[in-house]
Amino acid sequence: MANAADYKYEYYNVTFPAEYVAHVEINRPKKLNAFIEVMWLNLGAIFKKLSHDPNVRSIILTGAGDRAFTAGLDVQAASQGQLTAEAADGARKATALRRHIFEFQDCITAIEKCEKPVIVVMHGIAYGLALDMSLACDIRVSTNDTAFCVKEVDIGLAADIGTLSRLPHSVGNASFVKEIALSARIFGSDEALQHGLVSHVYADKKTAVDEALKLAALIASKSPVAVFGTKEIINYSRDRTVADGLNYTAIWNAAMLQTQDVKDAMMSGIQKRQAKFSKL
Amino acid sequence: MANAADYKYEYYNVTFPAEYVAHVEINRPKKLNAFIEVMWLNLGAIFKKLSHDPNVRSIILTGAGDRAFTAGLDVQAASQGQLTAEAADGARKATALRRHIFEFQDCITAIEKCEKPVIVVMHGIAYGLALDMSLACDIRVSTNDTAFCVKEVDIGLAADIGTLSRLPHSVGNASFVKEIALSARIFGSDEALQHGLVSHVYADKKTAVDEALKLAALIASKSPVAVFGTKEIINYSRDRTVADGLNYTAIWNAAMLQTQDVKDAMMSGIQKRQAKFSKL
Amino acid sequence: MANAADYKYEYYNVTFPAEYVAHVEINRPKKLNAFIEVMWLNLGAIFKKLSHDPNVRSIILTGAGDRAFTAGLDVQAASQGQLTAEAADGARKATALRRHIFEFQDCITAIEKCEKPVIVVMHGIAYGLALDMSLACDIRVSTNDTAFCVKEVDIGLAADIGTLSRLPHSVGNASFVKEIALSARIFGSDEALQHGLVSHVYADKKTAVDEALKLAALIASKSPVAVFGTKEIINYSRDRTVADGLNYTAIWNAAMLQTQDVKDAMMSGIQKRQAKFSKL
Amino acid sequence: MANAADYKYEYYNVTFPAEYVAHVEINRPKKLNAFIEVMWLNLGAIFKKLSHDPNVRSIILTGAGDRAFTAGLDVQAASQGQLTAEAADGARKATALRRHIFEFQDCITAIEKCEKPVIVVMHGIAYGLALDMSLACDIRVSTNDTAFCVKEVDIGLAADIGTLSRLPHSVGNASFVKEIALSARIFGSDEALQHGLVSHVYADKKTAVDEALKLAALIASKSPVAVFGTKEIINYSRDRTVADGLNYTAIWNAAMLQTQDVKDAMMSGIQKRQAKFSKL
Amino acid sequence: MANAADYKYEYYNVTFPAEYVAHVEINRPKKLNAFIEVMWLNLGAIFKKLSHDPNVRSIILTGAGDRAFTAGLDVQAASQGQLTAEAADGARKATALRRHIFEFQDCITAIEKCEKPVIVVMHGIAYGLALDMSLACDIRVSTNDTAFCVKEVDIGLAADIGTLSRLPHSVGNASFVKEIALSARIFGSDEALQHGLVSHVYADKKTAVDEALKLAALIASKSPVAVFGTKEIINYSRDRTVADGLNYTAIWNAAMLQTQDVKDAMMSGIQKRQAKFSKL
Amino acid sequence: MANAADYKYEYYNVTFPAEYVAHVEINRPKKLNAFIEVMWLNLGAIFKKLSHDPNVRSIILTGAGDRAFTAGLDVQAASQGQLTAEAADGARKATALRRHIFEFQDCITAIEKCEKPVIVVMHGIAYGLALDMSLACDIRVSTNDTAFCVKEVDIGLAADIGTLSRLPHSVGNASFVKEIALSARIFGSDEALQHGLVSHVYADKKTAVDEALKLAALIASKSPVAVFGTKEIINYSRDRTVADGLNYTAIWNAAMLQTQDVKDAMMSGIQKRQAKFSKL
Repeated sequence: MANAADYKYEYYNVTFPAEYVAHVEINRPKKLNAFIEVMWLNLGAIFKKLSHDPNVRSIILTGAGDRAFTAGLDVQAASQGQLTAEAADGARKATALRRHIFEFQDCITAIEKCEKPVIVVMHGIAYGLALDMSLACDIRVSTNDTAFCVKEVDIGLAADIGTLSRLPHSVGNASFVKEIALSARIFGSDEALQHGLVSHVYADKKTAVDEALKLAALIASKSPVAVFGTKEIINYSRDRTVADGLNYTAIWNAAMLQTQDVKDAMMSGIQKRQAKFSKL
Repeated sequence: MANAADYKYEYYNVTFPAEYVAHVEINRPKKLNAFIEVMWLNLGAIFKKLSHDPNVRSIILTGAGDRAFTAGLDVQAASQGQLTAEAADGARKATALRRHIFEFQDCITAIEKCEKPVIVVMHGIAYGLALDMSLACDIRVSTNDTAFCVKEVDIGLAADIGTLSRLPHSVGNASFVKEIALSARIFGSDEALQHGLVSHVYADKKTAVDEALKLAALIASKSPVAVFGTKEIINYSRDRTVADGLNYTAIWNAAMLQTQDVKDAMMSGIQKRQAKFSKL
Repeated sequence: MANAADYKYEYYNVTFPAEYVAHVEINRPKKLNAFIEVMWLNLGAIFKKLSHDPNVRSIILTGAGDRAFTAGLDVQAASQGQLTAEAADGARKATALRRHIFEFQDCITAIEKCEKPVIVVMHGIAYGLALDMSLACDIRVSTNDTAFCVKEVDIGLAADIGTLSRLPHSVGNASFVKEIALSARIFGSDEALQHGLVSHVYADKKTAVDEALKLAALIASKSPVAVFGTKEIINYSRDRTVADGLNYTAIWNAAMLQTQDVKDAMMSGIQKRQAKFSKL
Repeated sequence: MANAADYKYEYYNVTFPAEYVAHVEINRPKKLNAFIEVMWLNLGAIFKKLSHDPNVRSIILTGAGDRAFTAGLDVQAASQGQLTAEAADGARKATALRRHIFEFQDCITAIEKCEKPVIVVMHGIAYGLALDMSLACDIRVSTNDTAFCVKEVDIGLAADIGTLSRLPHSVGNASFVKEIALSARIFGSDEALQHGLVSHVYADKKTAVDEALKLAALIASKSPVAVFGTKEIINYSRDRTVADGLNYTAIWNAAMLQTQDVKDAMMSGIQKRQAKFSKL
Repeated sequence: MANAADYKYEYYNVTFPAEYVAHVEINRPKKLNAFIEVMWLNLGAIFKKLSHDPNVRSIILTGAGDRAFTAGLDVQAASQGQLTAEAADGARKATALRRHIFEFQDCITAIEKCEKPVIVVMHGIAYGLALDMSLACDIRVSTNDTAFCVKEVDIGLAADIGTLSRLPHSVGNASFVKEIALSARIFGSDEALQHGLVSHVYADKKTAVDEALKLAALIASKSPVAVFGTKEIINYSRDRTVADGLNYTAIWNAAMLQTQDVKDAMMSGIQKRQAKFSKL
Repeated sequence: MANAADYKYEYYNVTFPAEYVAHVEINRPKKLNAFIEVMWLNLGAIFKKLSHDPNVRSIILTGAGDRAFTAGLDVQAASQGQLTAEAADGARKATALRRHIFEFQDCITAIEKCEKPVIVVMHGIAYGLALDMSLACDIRVSTNDTAFCVKEVDIGLAADIGTLSRLPHSVGNASFVKEIALSARIFGSDEALQHGLVSHVYADKKTAVDEALKLAALIASKSPVAVFGTKEIINYSRDRTVADGLNYTAIWNAAMLQTQDVKDAMMSGIQKRQAKFSKL
């Protein structure tokens, strides 16, 4: 079992509800889980740690409270930060902003780079950063009451922490992608499911979290070598030609097929029992 | 207000139905808005002009008349043009065709490169070039009576003005993409919506145009800096790796966050009023 | 008519049910059409031959018997093959596996590289290799009773014959893609259609095959030059930027528009009759 | 013979010193051929025209006078232009600059896109824009007295009209590339030749121009189809994988081998006489 | 020792002059080693076989006789082949040419894909195909008397078997690359060495072959796992971003460092003796 | 002046010999500056810190002592590290190696990502890691006595910390690149200069360091905005198409031209005095 003491952060509850399953809960419910800087820095730290934790094989990400997965950036706090800092001229300001954006992006990208799959459960308000984060996750589910919004144009900027870079690779209706990003209109789970932003919609948050945990447990029961490779190769291939994807897969599996897991998985399949795999 | 006199073209009506909103109407209804060469040359010219027009922040594109958005290439005219011109040999013919295709493509790509979002409303007949054009637009809507057709194989050629290059990046059902392009079968708005070619279907043309205008007005009410960046970054990211998209976004916003719009948008959000943004 | 004698293979029935249409049937129904090595080698050989056969313009791929399109790899046979072969050390084992995976991939990729469109009909069990193969086809249809499964993680490995490289380019719901690949859960035609893996679902296998043959015949009635170019350019563009796609299309058509088919197709369109095209 | 009257520009002498050979001379010698805006706009226009001129098969580019190929941007003029124009805020300024840079880049890139090869002769001062332009040419030669300088950092900016994008693809000593671009130090033809920036150094301008004309005449004597393809495919391949280059070459030549020139060239080779090729 | 009987071809002598070293000699000296179709088909077959031959770790490629490495395509034979074959129209001709070029390219690319390094020794006449072949090799050396020529424009075509795709990635003087390809002028080993086409020039053919054999023997004495990886990763990285290269290298070595060779090589280094490595 | 106290590391001397210039000296001369793990971790940390240090504008990297820049990996230490660690099976071993290689690569890549240019001075022994590191630097110089060696194949592995990914983008003689990497032969500064690995060779270490410092001081005297952009855009363009490079440059400079440095640099140029630029 992973050591909960390694994962103590003010704005996150990290628990281990089942064998090899981690649950990361954003925990600032009084502020609708809105993000201040320490929160994204800690998010990055948590997922970097989970990535190499041998006791973790799958992860769910949720938001505390009934009202919001997250309302996104804490605009009040942001209005006193980098965006408004002084600088000697436009180029120096640009340099400071570039460094700041890179640091912020890296925290979110830590979810995508995490070696373990991440299932995100969105409920209630899911604005702005909610989409940046969830698009860096592997599997997205939501609830009947989720209100999605690519909020950034409403505060005068193009979303720069990942939404615009990942949306066109995640959702197969390019017209819908542009519409929600350009208009910042609020939409619900019905549209999110229809157009491919989520793969399941559940009646309420409790059901959604339960189902996400079941799915996480199912994935955690598989060979961690197979699961890691599957996440990594899909991410790689998403961004490249099929020919490059095939070539990468071949050398990846040249290493990874040399695992005891294949024999164990085949044997347990024949024997109709659950295989036990070594830690990764 | 943009100057309507700058946009006088025989086969187009260009109007400005709301503040910062342009309406480009293809106007050759007696011929089902079928295209002759001057029409695509003018289309390119119009969108290049709109791109830098500070009085325009969003655009809708429609076809005049009840029967057709456009029936595509005017085949009769085309049969007397480049396709059948004489040349000394196959290579010289190929060189002439290549120049011709590039010129034609550039006119359509002007819509994609236009700094302002373009919403296309398709109705009635939407064949061939209708898809080339609409896929270069940002947002696609249609009506219950729209009849779509990737018509090109029916006249013996692979679509070369953009449909085949943009479809696989726009529609998330690769089987549907191949099916409609290889068979040239006619399909309706139900399939277009189901598989991701359009994001809304309306009862009739009037409703569709009204709704498109509303959406255009909504987008035009946002910061033009934010809207321009959102369009540009999505187009960039669609074609590249997520890592490249993130890097490009960082340097884009290093410049573009240095706008008064962010402060104005945040402030008007807090004050629950509509922000006014400078021209771009 | 293509010469059936050229296509004699133990585990395949290759027939020519209509003019210019080939039907490739996987034929090992007692083993649920599970694949042993000779089968994928022969599959590659068949599609390489069909690719250049002037008497073939479209192809359907099906599985014999009522129960399965294919259950995937014959695991029992596989467990005695490359995966378990001895080698002097990990690097030498990796080299042998890399060669083996490349050979296997090339057989499946032969479907994608085949100059003629391939329509796959899936029914009953469609596990593992069923997806690798069908994703290399151009058009995917299934039946009400089809049970799909990206089976590989269940046997301890990341799918390496094509599924992971092609899924993210074929299906426009990235969450669904990851979910089915990471969990190996079985899903039906309803989800396959909803999320974009297939473009049609039919009541039963007979209906599906009939409809696929009709579609194949429709495609076979078009200019083979136009159909070949359409398949090739979509495959090329799927993997590249729109700008690269447009450039490639221009030079492709610089050659291919120099065909008699354009004139014949235009003329037969005007005369409302079926054109006859020369062999390709 | 090309029509000289089509190429009348204040700051350029365009002549046709041999059959199928054009000579473009930058002509503002009193100002060391320094560039003001109209000059790069005209440069773009000239090369776009030459690209399709059937009477031109190769081009040389030189600077008038003894002292300079070009001293680069006319800094005095520039200091009153875009760089210092006012704008409402940093983002609007950035938008104006981006449009301006794109326009400027396109003029220089017209040389690269020109279907005919361009040989540049550099002599005397060759600073700043001299490198941007010459790197867009196909063949670079210089004289013993040429003084090269990547001047931009000396005026506080990173070269943005092409030098930084093309240098690393043109010169095979990455250390030298960085050194000259970061230090803005002046270097001579010996280093330019040693590290790969030019392929020939001549004693003086007259010799260099004479040799360039001879080379231009040699190229102009070849099949224009072969020469056009050779330029285009090298440019394409320079930027892409070898596999993509080979694929593009195959479809390019599928069209271009259908030329009478192959037969004429082969036959004249056997008969030891000069072939005459049709216009392109 | 490799089995010479496996490598019997009319126009090639394949010998094994040292342990783990193969020598492939093009053997049609009376015709200056000019190529007819069977020769490139056999060349492809030979290198595909050598690639997996566990008794071969490095290869040299030479031409028989004193006068020529190879004079390139046998133009007389070519003039009766594909280039002049009849076809129904331009598109069908293009399709036949495309297939032919792909087949030809694949034979040459077999050298590049061969898992073992290939050193080519050029002497005397080295025209046309000589460059296509040698650019697919890993190491190029020549003799004082070598006469190089990118001959293709002289017969009316752009080189399509690899020269134009590989030259810009092999030679670090882009001006020289264009000059030799556009002019088809003959050049010697001095320029070839100066501009980076070869890495050594020797006094005569005998010396060059001896030195190439020594280098081949040196390479063959190293760990075959290390040598294979070095060739493969350089080829991969040459065509891609540094970031992609690093990522690929990491997963490649994740497999390949699991070799006994590392321990054996380190130990033999310490003990100052020659290591013996297992077959690959 | 940068604060030396921020840069205290056991195996490095970091000094600031001139305004805005940092000097990083590898300091383990008794072991020929061979690397143990803490050294590359610290190297990464140092360059990450220098990257954002406003008091640093250029950097030189050298090795302490007369005998070696660095002999590369401390093989004795390495033989007890990751390479020989135990793991449950080949896939788990591969996973551990992949993580280890990524961590190591990131330390070296910190030099490339550093916003300030880095000049490396190599002298004496420069083996293995010496090349990985120096290829991540911007400018490479060496001394008459430098002995270079791509040492990795001698210890049974393909270089995985950067040499193989960066060499083909840095050196314009692909034959030389393969030769040195496949043979691990030692070569001197003459070949390094001839083939493009270094841009200057000096008589001895003292002269080389003095000249490097002069060059660093020259670069440090330029606008830091211009220098940063020049490094970044060349690195970006090296890996991408010219078209992508131009587009990136345009948006980069859209931000960065908004600097006071342009005006200051122009003015000081006219006034023939040294400009003073704000910190970056």
